[in-house]
Amino acid sequence: MGTMPWHVYLSGEIHSDWRARIANAVMEEDLDVELSAPVTNHEASDDCGVAILGDEDKPFWKDHVGAGLNAIRTRTLIEQSDVVVVRFGEQYRQWNAAFDAGYAAALGKPLITLHPEQHDHALKEVDRAALAVAREPEQVVDVLRYVLNGTLPRR
Amino acid sequence: MGTMPWHVYLSGEIHSDWRARIANAVMEEDLDVELSAPVTNHEASDDCGVAILGDEDKPFWKDHVGAGLNAIRTRTLIEQSDVVVVRFGEQYRQWNAAFDAGYAAALGKPLITLHPEQHDHALKEVDRAALAVAREPEQVVDVLRYVLNGTLPRR
Amino acid sequence: MGTMPWHVYLSGEIHSDWRARIANAVMEEDLDVELSAPVTNHEASDDCGVAILGDEDKPFWKDHVGAGLNAIRTRTLIEQSDVVVVRFGEQYRQWNAAFDAGYAAALGKPLITLHPEQHDHALKEVDRAALAVAREPEQVVDVLRYVLNGTLPRR
Amino acid sequence: MGTMPWHVYLSGEIHSDWRARIANAVMEEDLDVELSAPVTNHEASDDCGVAILGDEDKPFWKDHVGAGLNAIRTRTLIEQSDVVVVRFGEQYRQWNAAFDAGYAAALGKPLITLHPEQHDHALKEVDRAALAVAREPEQVVDVLRYVLNGTLPRR
Amino acid sequence: MGTMPWHVYLSGEIHSDWRARIANAVMEEDLDVELSAPVTNHEASDDCGVAILGDEDKPFWKDHVGAGLNAIRTRTLIEQSDVVVVRFGEQYRQWNAAFDAGYAAALGKPLITLHPEQHDHALKEVDRAALAVAREPEQVVDVLRYVLNGTLPRR
Amino acid sequence: MGTMPWHVYLSGEIHSDWRARIANAVMEEDLDVELSAPVTNHEASDDCGVAILGDEDKPFWKDHVGAGLNAIRTRTLIEQSDVVVVRFGEQYRQWNAAFDAGYAAALGKPLITLHPEQHDHALKEVDRAALAVAREPEQVVDVLRYVLNGTLPRR
Amino acid sequence: MGTMPWHVYLSGEIHSDWRARIANAVMEEDLDVELSAPVTNHEASDDCGVAILGDEDKPFWKDHVGAGLNAIRTRTLIEQSDVVVVRFGEQYRQWNAAFDAGYAAALGKPLITLHPEQHDHALKEVDRAALAVAREPEQVVDVLRYVLNGTLPRR
Amino acid sequence: MGTMPWHVYLSGEIHSDWRARIANAVMEEDLDVELSAPVTNHEASDDCGVAILGDEDKPFWKDHVGAGLNAIRTRTLIEQSDVVVVRFGEQYRQWNAAFDAGYAAALGKPLITLHPEQHDHALKEVDRAALAVAREPEQVVDVLRYVLNGTLPRR
Repeated sequence: MGTMPWHVYLSGEIHSDWRARIANAVMEEDLDVELSAPVTNHEASDDCGVAILGDEDKPFWKDHVGAGLNAIRTRTLIEQSDVVVVRFGEQYRQWNAAFDAGYAAALGKPLITLHPEQHDHALKEVDRAALAVAREPEQVVDVLRYVLNGTLPRR
Repeated sequence: MGTMPWHVYLSGEIHSDWRARIANAVMEEDLDVELSAPVTNHEASDDCGVAILGDEDKPFWKDHVGAGLNAIRTRTLIEQSDVVVVRFGEQYRQWNAAFDAGYAAALGKPLITLHPEQHDHALKEVDRAALAVAREPEQVVDVLRYVLNGTLPRR
Repeated sequence: MGTMPWHVYLSGEIHSDWRARIANAVMEEDLDVELSAPVTNHEASDDCGVAILGDEDKPFWKDHVGAGLNAIRTRTLIEQSDVVVVRFGEQYRQWNAAFDAGYAAALGKPLITLHPEQHDHALKEVDRAALAVAREPEQVVDVLRYVLNGTLPRR
Repeated sequence: MGTMPWHVYLSGEIHSDWRARIANAVMEEDLDVELSAPVTNHEASDDCGVAILGDEDKPFWKDHVGAGLNAIRTRTLIEQSDVVVVRFGEQYRQWNAAFDAGYAAALGKPLITLHPEQHDHALKEVDRAALAVAREPEQVVDVLRYVLNGTLPRR
Repeated sequence: MGTMPWHVYLSGEIHSDWRARIANAVMEEDLDVELSAPVTNHEASDDCGVAILGDEDKPFWKDHVGAGLNAIRTRTLIEQSDVVVVRFGEQYRQWNAAFDAGYAAALGKPLITLHPEQHDHALKEVDRAALAVAREPEQVVDVLRYVLNGTLPRR
Repeated sequence: MGTMPWHVYLSGEIHSDWRARIANAVMEEDLDVELSAPVTNHEASDDCGVAILGDEDKPFWKDHVGAGLNAIRTRTLIEQSDVVVVRFGEQYRQWNAAFDAGYAAALGKPLITLHPEQHDHALKEVDRAALAVAREPEQVVDVLRYVLNGTLPRR
Repeated sequence: MGTMPWHVYLSGEIHSDWRARIANAVMEEDLDVELSAPVTNHEASDDCGVAILGDEDKPFWKDHVGAGLNAIRTRTLIEQSDVVVVRFGEQYRQWNAAFDAGYAAALGKPLITLHPEQHDHALKEVDRAALAVAREPEQVVDVLRYVLNGTLPRR
Repeated sequence: MGTMPWHVYLSGEIHSDWRARIANAVMEEDLDVELSAPVTNHEASDDCGVAILGDEDKPFWKDHVGAGLNAIRTRTLIEQSDVVVVRFGEQYRQWNAAFDAGYAAALGKPLITLHPEQHDHALKEVDRAALAVAREPEQVVDVLRYVLNGTLPRR
């Protein structure tokens, strides 16, 4: 039975290869999924505001103008998405990932979280709002394959 | 006059061939309709959570993680749909079908129920929220043909 | 500059050729508009309910089941539309046209009314909610051409 | 069990005593209902625009400015209401009543229509969107008493 | 710290004393909660439509007009509520309870389900949408006390 | 990673070439952006109402019918847009630009303002609602390139 | 018939006594209206950000933090209001007034504009979104009296 | 001029006295503000789920049922609030605070963040969505006093 392609937004950690692992598997299996993400070039993401809109003396305002540009991207993509995946890595505070999760939850977007067990307690409120808690990127692909095609992994 | 293809979500009973009867008729008559449905493989639908996200000791949590994955699919498809058809069969309690009907009604989706007369009294609240109550899958196709093309059945 | 095609729903009177006049002009001028409408075959529109879902003894319930099917069509098309045109003819009470106008207004759809001057006072509340009040179908086409292309009629 | 007072908006016909009959019964029975209505002084309702905002030469614009003021009242009260009752009398076209019904329906407000049988066919689309179709004002009071207190009339 | 009183709607089973047990405990503990419910007089609930709006020959339409009146009450109260509790008893299909749960979920209302373990598998989709699954009415009171006052039961 | 084309609405000043500068750059760089705008032919925009819907004696009503037609276009395009850019030029009061900004902000559309420094104080409320404040059209293109592709300008 | 008090937000010009004239008349006539407004102390409104949150070197950021605080007030009050009145005086650009008008319009709030004729052409888009265009504060009171009580002025 | 009391939700850190400092100042100054908060008893907040709904073997599910109860409280209070304040302390990851911030932002609630400078870079996305960034609880009170009464601090 026909469905429209699903838009899946991949929020959170930018220091590991989890997005690439999901993207490769989606491509290999030819799942009818369009992936999107924030700008994952850390330096560009930090500098974009002052590079485009003009320099700022204070770090606070440099961050502020940069975060504005990044918000144009992330809010638009979250609005356009059918499913939002949020990855919490082992380092960094990643408050923006949790912010995206709250934003997506309030919009009623189905949410998948992806993080190691060690963060379970700290992430309990975020996980409670999610419809799936995955440990590995491959599980996210398994979830997408299942919700799109009804197929379980052959493991 | 041109319209966009209509997305029709087929919720409810998974133990009879009602979806296939609708799908065949839609295809034969070339109606401009995209059908979608929950995962109708009963076993996959029950096992998906633990098969993908890891085993659970308690049946309650096994059901919980599975229902989470199924909800990713069903809520997304209900959101994307123009019309929601909900089938109540002769057996089983099918609370999830009634839940989907309530969910769709609150979103303002036009609702068609499909069930035998014997359930009329028990389903009166659900039927009251519907814009059509059908007895046979073929009547659902008749409704879709009419609302799309304005054509009445030749019977 | 590129825009998406506009969906325009043509609600109201079914006993004159106003829709055909608009459709012809839209086609001749190749405006990027998709028109839609209720079922305009009066007999089919009245009989659809009992013809598909089974006979009723009382006229009230015959009307009720028929109106349910027509509502599946009209609400879906109004939801999908960018602009709603509502035509009030010289005869009939056409409460359904006014109902559609109120429904569209509450959804925030831009509204165009189309009616002769003789109904101005009776339609003042409906006209107040409209962004244009036209007298002739050709004016509706002029409005569509202008809002799409910025072109004024050469008259 | 405690509930908040219900706000009930009484839309439609202004040439009979139906509102007074409902208001009297609500007061006598001490139902926890706040009734509201459009301005029912026909002359004031027609003249309000030009009387307050300045004269207009054309009747169309006189109606337009008056309808604007009336819309401030009616839209605010419909928004604030829990239930909307719409009365269609035996005369006049009352397109504004049908407009209010459509507006309320699109906002998801429970709708009660009140009209004689002779208009059943012409009002079938409006009635289809209603949760109750009453013939007499006293039936509307019976409905309000029941939905508030669960009490059936002693007739 | 001050909060507004919470409105809690108690949906579902009408053949046991679960609502009274919750209401008594709420009163005894003086929790700042306003409880509401559907009409729980089974006979009145079944007959209300024809008793008020006039008799019907077919059971289907008797149910339909009655369900309309009940929907005026239930939808208004669900809209007004902060939390919705849905009880599934040991007998009956209670599709209306599941419908209410779906309706409340789509509106974003926090949902508490209340049912014996034997229905866990059949209710897994409904429970997945709930923020708490209780077995006994007293647990619902414990939840309300905690979410209002932060106090755990002394058991 | 794939995304849908973005719709960007360019509101405000019509007496300079800022839209053309953005459009040219978008085309040259082949950004996946669909631009839209109000009717920028000043004379057509002022005259459209009376040219299409009939003459008016008073300038106020001439403006009113024209503004109605323009609103059909602008509201539809703002609704369809992912990002709204609002340009305030050095002359004119441009209240309609500020109105569009408020309208877009209330709909949750990411907002970019474009104006010279001299208006900073007068525009502080509008700028506060924006996610970027640009001085030159080329900066708007830089922002679009960045939010779409993550690429910073090579300056 | 009983209604709730109406909340009316008075946006715009802060350099004349128009709010006081409305407030006095509302009090004298004992209209059931709660008036609210932005902070109208110009200096406090300009300085609030840096006075509370710490100094800024650049005027742009001083304005930005101040506008943030003012937006907390104005957005909350506009959200809470039933009717929004927007005053455009003879001087200043008052883009924030037009922004508020657009914001209120997108939320579906009934809008009343108040300005001298000389701005009619420049304000035509804002006026088109309004349900009344007044010239004097006393007319706004006349409108409020009429929409609340149905009473026309005795002039 | 009269306004309704404002509901302010205080989200985030529970290991310092920041809420008490705000509450005391609000009381002393008699600001027309109702404060609310999550359950700030850490132990109760962690144990509530299993204490009320029954024990769980796995920490993950203990957290899950507890987070469900806490979500009933926090989502209801955020929905009811006019302003949301989110505090990030010097320790802990406080992903739930960032989640609340995202949730509130998506609902359009005015947001105030409260945190030391050391977190500025990590919180830049959250701060960008806020209308004020405060360093000390007293500044939050200053903001509330100003947005309610227009009064600047006497410092």
